[in-house]
Amino acid sequence: MPALITSYAPEYSSQELRLKIRRGEIKGSTSGLARTMQANLIVLPSRYAKDFRGLCMRNPVACPLLECLKPGDWESRLAENSDLRTDIPAYNVWKDGKLVSRRKSDIREEWTSDHVGFLIGCSYSFETALKDAGLEPMCSKKNLAVPMYITNIRLNPSGVFSGFYVVSMRSYKPCDIPRVREITGNYIKQHGEPIAWGWEEAARIGVARKIEMGLVDFGDVVEIPDDEIPVFWACGVTPQVAVQESRLKGVVMSHLPGSMFVTDLEPDDEESIML
Amino acid sequence: MPALITSYAPEYSSQELRLKIRRGEIKGSTSGLARTMQANLIVLPSRYAKDFRGLCMRNPVACPLLECLKPGDWESRLAENSDLRTDIPAYNVWKDGKLVSRRKSDIREEWTSDHVGFLIGCSYSFETALKDAGLEPMCSKKNLAVPMYITNIRLNPSGVFSGFYVVSMRSYKPCDIPRVREITGNYIKQHGEPIAWGWEEAARIGVARKIEMGLVDFGDVVEIPDDEIPVFWACGVTPQVAVQESRLKGVVMSHLPGSMFVTDLEPDDEESIML
Repeated sequence: MPALITSYAPEYSSQELRLKIRRGEIKGSTSGLARTMQANLIVLPSRYAKDFRGLCMRNPVACPLLECLKPGDWESRLAENSDLRTDIPAYNVWKDGKLVSRRKSDIREEWTSDHVGFLIGCSYSFETALKDAGLEPMCSKKNLAVPMYITNIRLNPSGVFSGFYVVSMRSYKPCDIPRVREITGNYIKQHGEPIAWGWEEAARIGVARKIEMGLVDFGDVVEIPDDEIPVFWACGVTPQVAVQESRLKGVVMSHLPGSMFVTDLEPDDEESIML
Repeated sequence: MPALITSYAPEYSSQELRLKIRRGEIKGSTSGLARTMQANLIVLPSRYAKDFRGLCMRNPVACPLLECLKPGDWESRLAENSDLRTDIPAYNVWKDGKLVSRRKSDIREEWTSDHVGFLIGCSYSFETALKDAGLEPMCSKKNLAVPMYITNIRLNPSGVFSGFYVVSMRSYKPCDIPRVREITGNYIKQHGEPIAWGWEEAARIGVARKIEMGLVDFGDVVEIPDDEIPVFWACGVTPQVAVQESRLKGVVMSHLPGSMFVTDLEPDDEESIML
């Protein structure tokens, strides 16, 4: 694992951050690096674009679609002078369903005129709001990546795509849940309010044992204090897992979970997202 | 049960149909009555409007929001000269979570300046497309209401609202499923493609035994031929059940399942729906 850079760095604008990432000066997690909205990236051969767009539209809590680019385009409308092929710290590349390159810093060679890029909302954006309200999650306090779990909750299928919700987990005292729901509920394009909370719900969605055994599917293991319960948000890794499971033909690319694309959008700037 | 009027009546425009319904000349199911888009109605006290809008946005396959009216308004933008208080064959009215009137033909007295109306897409719209493709469902051939079942699939919660998907069921030969998925997948605001199909999936979503025992939660019982399997679409009765389960304070109204609001929109006219 590369060292996590999680210190909050408001001295850089989102554009400066992207340039630093492009130059290789920032590696690893982008958590806490920007006050602006961060995004997950999925890049697919154009023949899968319609079905994937449908997957997002039919599962907006897990796959909140921020932008769907034109085939071959790599400059995001949500980030000035951006290049989606270089402005993320690390990428994964699959060919015919098989992971062929991990943690690549640049995908300019792989991105053809037939590739369609999708940007999907990320819960990093609401973590700042939780922190501002005195509800900073443990993972953020400890400079760890948020723990993520693959659940048994199915996505609504769309064409070739199907799969299961991936959730991120943060723990809270039961008395804080209403406030946590309210704050994150405003971030509609960033997974919104939690989809489940408490140990009973953790068992129902198929992740309780994993948590008890100190396991994660993605991210870091974070202990839950005795007076807190797990709270689960839909997570932007969901479409990445769904894409992997669908064993698509051709070259598929995505960001490395945790290393996101930094946009210019304010976290609550829902209005400027037109699809 | 009132007699079902299911003969296809293209001689009437959608506006004429609404007038006939308003005058009490058409009662019961509106299935097959119009080529235009039909809609489910939910009417709530304004304090619940934000959470309910969130429920729709977070569960667009089960609750595809077509229109959210201003408090007190009862004329739909989707239907010229319409009156949502009179233009549906039958309404149900709840007070403090208790059903107080069934099959009312008119809710002008109940609809106050504090009431917010929501119109939600309906699968009747894609039935015409299935029929045109030679894939008319059995219920439609037999002039029966489509069978509907409450599943164990949870909605993404939103504020005071939570609940389970309700599905409509039509049976098809396995070889026809890809075509059925493709056709209905185009009707994004009318539940789109099925969310599950086959007996194994029926068991998973908790409805197989009900079907085998000849039971339904809503609609009519329709037999499944031996060479066909059940196919399940998310259903617009979902929000109605979620609203009932939430035991809201005050007066809540909705259409009687099966008796829908007839809009002026073409079934594939997604563009004119702006929220």
